[in-house]
Amino acid sequence: MKKSTQISLKTTSHTALTLITRQVAEAVTELEIVNGLIHIFVLHTTCGLTINENADPDVVHDLLCRLDNLAPWHGSEDRHMEGNSAAHLKSSLLGSSVTVPVKSGQLVLGTWQGIFFGEFDGPRKRSVYLTAIRS
Amino acid sequence: MKKSTQISLKTTSHTALTLITRQVAEAVTELEIVNGLIHIFVLHTTCGLTINENADPDVVHDLLCRLDNLAPWHGSEDRHMEGNSAAHLKSSLLGSSVTVPVKSGQLVLGTWQGIFFGEFDGPRKRSVYLTAIRS
Amino acid sequence: MKKSTQISLKTTSHTALTLITRQVAEAVTELEIVNGLIHIFVLHTTCGLTINENADPDVVHDLLCRLDNLAPWHGSEDRHMEGNSAAHLKSSLLGSSVTVPVKSGQLVLGTWQGIFFGEFDGPRKRSVYLTAIRS
Repeated sequence: MKKSTQISLKTTSHTALTLITRQVAEAVTELEIVNGLIHIFVLHTTCGLTINENADPDVVHDLLCRLDNLAPWHGSEDRHMEGNSAAHLKSSLLGSSVTVPVKSGQLVLGTWQGIFFGEFDGPRKRSVYLTAIRS
Repeated sequence: MKKSTQISLKTTSHTALTLITRQVAEAVTELEIVNGLIHIFVLHTTCGLTINENADPDVVHDLLCRLDNLAPWHGSEDRHMEGNSAAHLKSSLLGSSVTVPVKSGQLVLGTWQGIFFGEFDGPRKRSVYLTAIRS
Repeated sequence: MKKSTQISLKTTSHTALTLITRQVAEAVTELEIVNGLIHIFVLHTTCGLTINENADPDVVHDLLCRLDNLAPWHGSEDRHMEGNSAAHLKSSLLGSSVTVPVKSGQLVLGTWQGIFFGEFDGPRKRSVYLTAIRS
């Protein structure tokens, strides 16, 4: 049985929260996880993962604005030559991984929950690494 | 052997960090986890989970005040009609899950660590989903 | 087969992000994880873990400055007598654990990713608890 798989994403804007619930559900099927968890991990340091509301797109808008306020693009004390320290901070605030329960082959998510890939210094090609954990 | 279980919570205020260490320890017993991890996951998008100090209640006070400063209830750019984008932001900052080691049937926690449920738009009924991972 | 192990750290400054990738890789070998995950967990409430860029040390500088801005040492509403609520906040923002995939006995990390221990109220002796999860 396969133990891990990858998702490739091509983000299209500088900053975005992109829903990847469907791709993760397909990975659950591909990895034949019946009961347990799926671990989702980004292989980059200027993006992250989060679970949040998947009903009203205004929630995503508000989250992105509020994250910009916490991590403004220009930081007065920044030294990093690439100038993308804000993206590194957002990556650490959201985290590089999320882990979602699986029951009877299905993701266990609340009514409003979606799994989002957070791009903070795009557009770029991105890779997400998924690992099966069987209970 | 049971693979997952749930905890139901009824929060009593708008914003709170509620200690759930005891309920999680009971779930470890119910799921008969000897060595491994317990994965704790909220099924909602305006609450979160965190591990922090369980000795001085003033730490919880300070954390809640400081989170309010990072995520003020009224955001000047907010569009979400429900008006609770601050709660969605706190949910993403803390995260939807925590995972705690288990050794010989007991949670592995440092002296001062407690597991907290973060309510950010209560009072509400909340569900927490727990999954056993055996090493 | 061993199921868990510990790393001891002696931090040398008040605030720091210390690379622990090598120690975690050694734990993967010690725990004989071939495929799966390694779960890394701090046993304290004024430090945390994060994955971020391990190439330019200025990224660490910028992250620490920006975290200080989000969690200033003196909070106007703080009540906690120890005066280290900023450290508790950073602990909750970064989180108490990270989980990293393992494939063929090696950590799966992107080119620029390193695993960092975040000290926010040092210098102190710190313990990190590592758990093997086999796929």
